[in-house]
Amino acid sequence: MVAKQTLTDLRPVAENGLLDRRAFFKGGAALAAAMSGYSLSKQAAAEPLEDAEWMRTLGRDVPAYGQPSPMEGEVIGSLVRRSWGGVGNRRTPHHLLNGTLTPSGLHFFVGHSGLPNIDPAEHKLLIHGLVSQPLAFTLESLMRYPMQTRMTYIECGGNSAPMYSPEPIQDTVQALHGMSSCSEWTGVMLSTLLEETGVDAQAKWLIAEGAESIAHTRSVPVYKALDDAMIALYQNGERIRPEQGYPMRLLLPGWEGNMNVKWLRRIELTEMPGMTAAEISSYADLLPNNDVMMFNFVNQVKSFITHPSPGYMLNGAGFYEISGIAYSGRGRISKVMLSADGGRTWAQAALQEPVLSKSFTRFRLPWRWDGGPAVLQSRAWDEAGHVQPTRAEILSWRGENPTVPPVTGFPSHHYNGPTSWAIAPGGEVSHVYV
Amino acid sequence: MVAKQTLTDLRPVAENGLLDRRAFFKGGAALAAAMSGYSLSKQAAAEPLEDAEWMRTLGRDVPAYGQPSPMEGEVIGSLVRRSWGGVGNRRTPHHLLNGTLTPSGLHFFVGHSGLPNIDPAEHKLLIHGLVSQPLAFTLESLMRYPMQTRMTYIECGGNSAPMYSPEPIQDTVQALHGMSSCSEWTGVMLSTLLEETGVDAQAKWLIAEGAESIAHTRSVPVYKALDDAMIALYQNGERIRPEQGYPMRLLLPGWEGNMNVKWLRRIELTEMPGMTAAEISSYADLLPNNDVMMFNFVNQVKSFITHPSPGYMLNGAGFYEISGIAYSGRGRISKVMLSADGGRTWAQAALQEPVLSKSFTRFRLPWRWDGGPAVLQSRAWDEAGHVQPTRAEILSWRGENPTVPPVTGFPSHHYNGPTSWAIAPGGEVSHVYV
Repeated sequence: MVAKQTLTDLRPVAENGLLDRRAFFKGGAALAAAMSGYSLSKQAAAEPLEDAEWMRTLGRDVPAYGQPSPMEGEVIGSLVRRSWGGVGNRRTPHHLLNGTLTPSGLHFFVGHSGLPNIDPAEHKLLIHGLVSQPLAFTLESLMRYPMQTRMTYIECGGNSAPMYSPEPIQDTVQALHGMSSCSEWTGVMLSTLLEETGVDAQAKWLIAEGAESIAHTRSVPVYKALDDAMIALYQNGERIRPEQGYPMRLLLPGWEGNMNVKWLRRIELTEMPGMTAAEISSYADLLPNNDVMMFNFVNQVKSFITHPSPGYMLNGAGFYEISGIAYSGRGRISKVMLSADGGRTWAQAALQEPVLSKSFTRFRLPWRWDGGPAVLQSRAWDEAGHVQPTRAEILSWRGENPTVPPVTGFPSHHYNGPTSWAIAPGGEVSHVYV
Repeated sequence: MVAKQTLTDLRPVAENGLLDRRAFFKGGAALAAAMSGYSLSKQAAAEPLEDAEWMRTLGRDVPAYGQPSPMEGEVIGSLVRRSWGGVGNRRTPHHLLNGTLTPSGLHFFVGHSGLPNIDPAEHKLLIHGLVSQPLAFTLESLMRYPMQTRMTYIECGGNSAPMYSPEPIQDTVQALHGMSSCSEWTGVMLSTLLEETGVDAQAKWLIAEGAESIAHTRSVPVYKALDDAMIALYQNGERIRPEQGYPMRLLLPGWEGNMNVKWLRRIELTEMPGMTAAEISSYADLLPNNDVMMFNFVNQVKSFITHPSPGYMLNGAGFYEISGIAYSGRGRISKVMLSADGGRTWAQAALQEPVLSKSFTRFRLPWRWDGGPAVLQSRAWDEAGHVQPTRAEILSWRGENPTVPPVTGFPSHHYNGPTSWAIAPGGEVSHVYV
């Protein structure tokens, strides 16, 4: 699974120093030569090796539940408060992370009434409406059902909304794309529970409702419930976190975040959708002809570069790895192309195995920066054949100034175009439109 | 990847109610019928749905770095203190977790001098000895190298040592097998760094040393370093945790935990191994003929059932899922067999996809408990063709009372036999030898 990683073949395959991704997959070796003259590492005298201060004393004690190093205090979610004072969303600091998983403590959050203090022994999930027999499930009873585990990401419909700004917003990838996160989820397939309740033939929708004080509610077509919907009970191995709906949430892999109802307490089977506020207003998009695009379900294919990205300062010309995250609500990522010259020439990135359906996929490419101006951009394809549209294509369809009700604080939703980072000769990274 | 999960075919395939694993993989449906008479869920009146206390008020605020629910305060690592007062090991509560990942906060820990307060800006990794040029790598420089991400478990050589007890120890799977944990790791392949330093032809070993005050040291054959060894910088997406070697550790997938040197500060290439305390004493096994088995590298294939397991009380006859964890240092798990009658008859368990090399693999099987006595046991095979030996086979080779120096507090290391849980008619689960 892990390819032996040596840079045997360092031919540039596109302008501005993008190297061949196959370098990652080959044996052999000329990394030292390829990197020579760039001094990533320092020649060192072997001995004596001085003992640092922390080797001269016993370390601190080990807690029963561990935390990140105190030196990592700046690796936190960025918080946006609502008018009522509470946190409305928390964003994942993708520029400070690596791999494919999002740490549970840094998973994005969007909510409207804080974290309910749910007692799991008292919480119940009711399934009713157009069913043969309405049933109530306690956590204890759900723990006896057959479970499944899968990696999948969740993305808010409002993620990447800052990309609609007429001028590129100068901020980190956390601010631009931080409302998307990936976890391993374990729980009971919703189809298993619906087989037990029975589903009447005329039921076409289910209405899912949360147990927070605002009782967030969304309508989901029954076909999704019978496909891969899960009642998620565990996240990254432990009970699901409060920000993700403790003790249970609806998980709809690849579908817009707010449909994955947290603190789930009720599923009602119905003939018609609920036409709830979230679906006819908050997450609906007004089009230039005044049509409203409601019931956005699937997250379209997207990618962004996390390393390097704004906040980084490149420390001199030479070798760097470009890496980032790609995902699609339609299945596996099939290809990610990278450009270092603002989209003129492209090189194919290596995809980190295993490439899983509806999961984050980490892409990587070796890059030799010549120290001159460069514009980095990624573009992803999925196995369904979809590709990220250009920003111009999105604006031609959505209008130059797409709007939704001001509750979100962003101009609009559902942006999945590319993001471009300009590298200045001094090494600074900034956000540009190309 | 996630099979639609319905229990179409509930024929027992072994004694005492073990059902066909293919039930997990088929469409169609008769779960309600299969479960009927067992009332996992309760018939419910649909309306009115009463609002719980936590729906009548705003929830608490969202932190910038999230934590588990306050209701999960008992889901913690169990701590064993050393004579000097500090925590010597922390064990993973597998009986309270599900999925394949271990939460970073609950990853097992073994150490001898606490957690060093390492400043990542000051920490360096020195590679020297039989190399063309000794090099020192800062964290900043390593961040520029090509990286890889992989899921892999780490297991302490002392894990499962309580299984050598002449009488079965009545404790949880956390106490018996809690020194094994699985994470997603991201970092630089050691082979990449060794290509840069060059490796002299006579170098056969490397000696890896940690930066904690005890400077734990182990010898590793060069062939492993050039195969899949990694300098791990990230764990489950964020910087590696203090208990796992912040800011960097050696990762040797599938090899005994203490060789995966934490807080790594030095790798010296040598002709001969270091014959360090950990390899000639702490983790060496005395055999009945007084030979000493040193240099135990590979974790042999192992499995244990986590649900149900001691600490659970089965709540009446009926449907349950049996699940657990299997892994091998030699590659992928190829098969797990389960018995509900103490090893007389067996049924094949379903393996949660994706099954990755040298990673935890979650196995599952539907089970209909008739309420009578049962003895649950698992046995795993790996793709290299190895199988878990019986406890009798291990004792015939290791002796009836295998011993190591008393520093560990356990009778011996490297137990990979099966574990058996007896279910009493009342539903209590206990540890038995069969």
